Amino acid sequence: MKTTELLRAVAGGERSAREVCDAAIARIDATDPRVNAFTERTFARARAEADAVDARRARGEVLPPLAGLPYAVKNLFDVAGVITLAGSKINRDLPPAQDDAVLVQRLKAAGAVLLGALNMDEYAYGFTTENTHYGPTRNPHDLTRMSGGSSGGSGAAVAAGQVPLALGSDTNGSIRVPSSLCGVWGLKPTFGRLSRRGSYPFVHSLDHLGPLADSVEALALSYDAMQGADPQDPGCHAQRVQPAASRLGNGLAGLRIGVLRGYFDDNATPAARAVAQQAAKVLGATETVDWPDAGIARAAAFLITASEGGSLHLPDLRKRPQDFEPLSVDRFISGALQPVDWYLRAQRFRRIYRDKVNALFEHWDVLVAPATPVASPPIGTDWLEINGQRQPSRPVMGLLTQPISFAGCPVVAAPLWPEGTGGLPIGVQLIAAPWREDLCLRAAKVLQDSGTAHLKDPTL
Amino acid sequence: MKTTELLRAVAGGERSAREVCDAAIARIDATDPRVNAFTERTFARARAEADAVDARRARGEVLPPLAGLPYAVKNLFDVAGVITLAGSKINRDLPPAQDDAVLVQRLKAAGAVLLGALNMDEYAYGFTTENTHYGPTRNPHDLTRMSGGSSGGSGAAVAAGQVPLALGSDTNGSIRVPSSLCGVWGLKPTFGRLSRRGSYPFVHSLDHLGPLADSVEALALSYDAMQGADPQDPGCHAQRVQPAASRLGNGLAGLRIGVLRGYFDDNATPAARAVAQQAAKVLGATETVDWPDAGIARAAAFLITASEGGSLHLPDLRKRPQDFEPLSVDRFISGALQPVDWYLRAQRFRRIYRDKVNALFEHWDVLVAPATPVASPPIGTDWLEINGQRQPSRPVMGLLTQPISFAGCPVVAAPLWPEGTGGLPIGVQLIAAPWREDLCLRAAKVLQDSGTAHLKDPTL
Repeated sequence: MKTTELLRAVAGGERSAREVCDAAIARIDATDPRVNAFTERTFARARAEADAVDARRARGEVLPPLAGLPYAVKNLFDVAGVITLAGSKINRDLPPAQDDAVLVQRLKAAGAVLLGALNMDEYAYGFTTENTHYGPTRNPHDLTRMSGGSSGGSGAAVAAGQVPLALGSDTNGSIRVPSSLCGVWGLKPTFGRLSRRGSYPFVHSLDHLGPLADSVEALALSYDAMQGADPQDPGCHAQRVQPAASRLGNGLAGLRIGVLRGYFDDNATPAARAVAQQAAKVLGATETVDWPDAGIARAAAFLITASEGGSLHLPDLRKRPQDFEPLSVDRFISGALQPVDWYLRAQRFRRIYRDKVNALFEHWDVLVAPATPVASPPIGTDWLEINGQRQPSRPVMGLLTQPISFAGCPVVAAPLWPEGTGGLPIGVQLIAAPWREDLCLRAAKVLQDSGTAHLKDPTL
Repeated sequence: MKTTELLRAVAGGERSAREVCDAAIARIDATDPRVNAFTERTFARARAEADAVDARRARGEVLPPLAGLPYAVKNLFDVAGVITLAGSKINRDLPPAQDDAVLVQRLKAAGAVLLGALNMDEYAYGFTTENTHYGPTRNPHDLTRMSGGSSGGSGAAVAAGQVPLALGSDTNGSIRVPSSLCGVWGLKPTFGRLSRRGSYPFVHSLDHLGPLADSVEALALSYDAMQGADPQDPGCHAQRVQPAASRLGNGLAGLRIGVLRGYFDDNATPAARAVAQQAAKVLGATETVDWPDAGIARAAAFLITASEGGSLHLPDLRKRPQDFEPLSVDRFISGALQPVDWYLRAQRFRRIYRDKVNALFEHWDVLVAPATPVASPPIGTDWLEINGQRQPSRPVMGLLTQPISFAGCPVVAAPLWPEGTGGLPIGVQLIAAPWREDLCLRAAKVLQDSGTAHLKDPTL
């Protein structure tokens, strides 16, 4: 049962929130030993939250917009009473969080029911969720393959039908990559849109939080519930709420939609190019568009990520390097020791780059590009061939997402199912100007309603 | 004639703007061969601007607030048709500026008359204006001594009676140090208050612009004329104009004023401590206050300054190191190559530090401290003794200013004249919470009206 049906069933009394919650628990119990999406189960809390929804309904209260909706969060969100692991071994030494993260508080206030915390790349530094401490999260559509990352637990939990909604974070693609590889919907909002208070940081200059879900409606409704200023988070620049769910029905009227070429063709396999073309066709997008300086932007995003991430963890890198994820520890150390000039040049470039990207959106409302160069590779893959070029498999997963988030633009990742990938999905990015989440969500809704983009039941 | 009298005389028709302008030109011609404050004279422009004021008066127009007031600007402000040297040899290769800097445009609109551009430490990296390319700017109260820096030309031009108003910039103390050493008034506004568009940058994270002047009124009137949002400058965070000149008359009513101790005593000579005590007494401040983490803040400001300054100039440092100022070239190079972790830790500390400083201002409105540890040393001094500690003379000039600007607080530097310095001045910092320039200007006005702080005629 998809989010909208489920919300309608709970609101109408056809199903109790507790029934919905228990079904989610049963599904998690049945599938997670194979998928490995959850690192913490909060089933007692979930049952209490579900019962509270049912009690409100029994009293005749009007239920809030997400009443009874099960969800889970990447384990970098604070959950009261749970240790915020952020995929690490080191964080086991931390005390449990005292309060929920702001976004968890807001989803709770909207009636959603929290089932647990989800696996990820250690400290969000990766695109594959091949977590050495907690094991890899496996792709529900092929358990031998990667779920993508760093919000791999979030992508897999939704794809496996464990929860219809999961929260993730995206610094360089960490919502969009697992959405693409697991075949679910994902929304990376505008940089600075949602409060990050109560989440474990990675790269202050680039971190975003956002939802992954079973449908465009679930993205829009949860996004609306999480929106709003947070004066206590200096990184939250949203001045006002700009509701998106109520605009989903507006279709494509007035939208100027183009397809990114150049860098976005060169760094995509034929299957990835095919899904972008397929989406473009449904959206009536015939013109191709050159995104400025995509390669430089990716390099700059890499430098800033390694610098800020490495600096954040340097005290532990000095004391206990052996406790870090082997796949990222060297990048962290070298990142922290880079000459500051590299970092500052990257930040200066970013200011110019944003102006160029913003200028592009004077002519366009939504731009289309693949989300990953390939469909999900087998877990443990070190090298991939993309258009005849041998490339390291893990960093290339972000090739197409990094330039977009570096400009701060909101993006919906839409799940498409190309031919020639053995039944595996590849996502399509629907990109809008900063602060215009409503536009990419409208385009996403059209793709969904046309049947072009959708989830598939996994053969678990 | 002080600024207020001068403005009244021009507005009332007792003196023409042209007469005032010509008197300033005569004074500059008579004194600058010895002081060396000016690097560029814009006398033709000055006469044209003065004549335009007189023409408006002749037409019976209401004159703008600074009509006929002569001023000059540190040579890092763009002046149309003039090369923005920023104290360097290298910038001689640049084309002349096409437009005036925003603040010059605003002073022009307010009727002020621009006499020229002023000497400074190369690229603003210094506290002494011992500029090797253009010669040192000499202290008008003792031509063998330093003017302070980096806005040394601005301090000396006002102290020498060449202009009643000069613009400077302050990254770590570059308005307050020359104000202190030359015995003039200075205002370093809140970080982010005044537009920096059209000025040559030094440290994006720390640069401020502001006035040095002959009186508190001149500070407040010029500050009011320069205030206001600038949507084209992403570093300008002022949302609205908060007039200060009209509040000068409010005296000390309701102001809670304290004196900084600890770090600010330890790093000041007896003469500097004495002027702070003298100001505190006049302001009725009896309680002492501990400023949080002043020493760490100074270190962090140093790291950020060297990093951003070095990175900005690295292409030239690679190509033509021999053309840089010998006093700063090594600091620039080493700054650019520092590990990024040092820079990022300093920036992270700054966020915490600001919160601590802001909390202090819940209990205090104005805090008092010396502006420099000593009065002006002889030009060429390499080492100084401060409370028995031998210290390098040039960096110690910023000991007391750096922690304050690192928190972004507005500061007025007031000129006092202690005993035991051979007749040389030492400034006092009047510090308020961010965005409360009005409060430190009110305290400054009380110090001025009491006769405690004032300019002295130099014996040129």
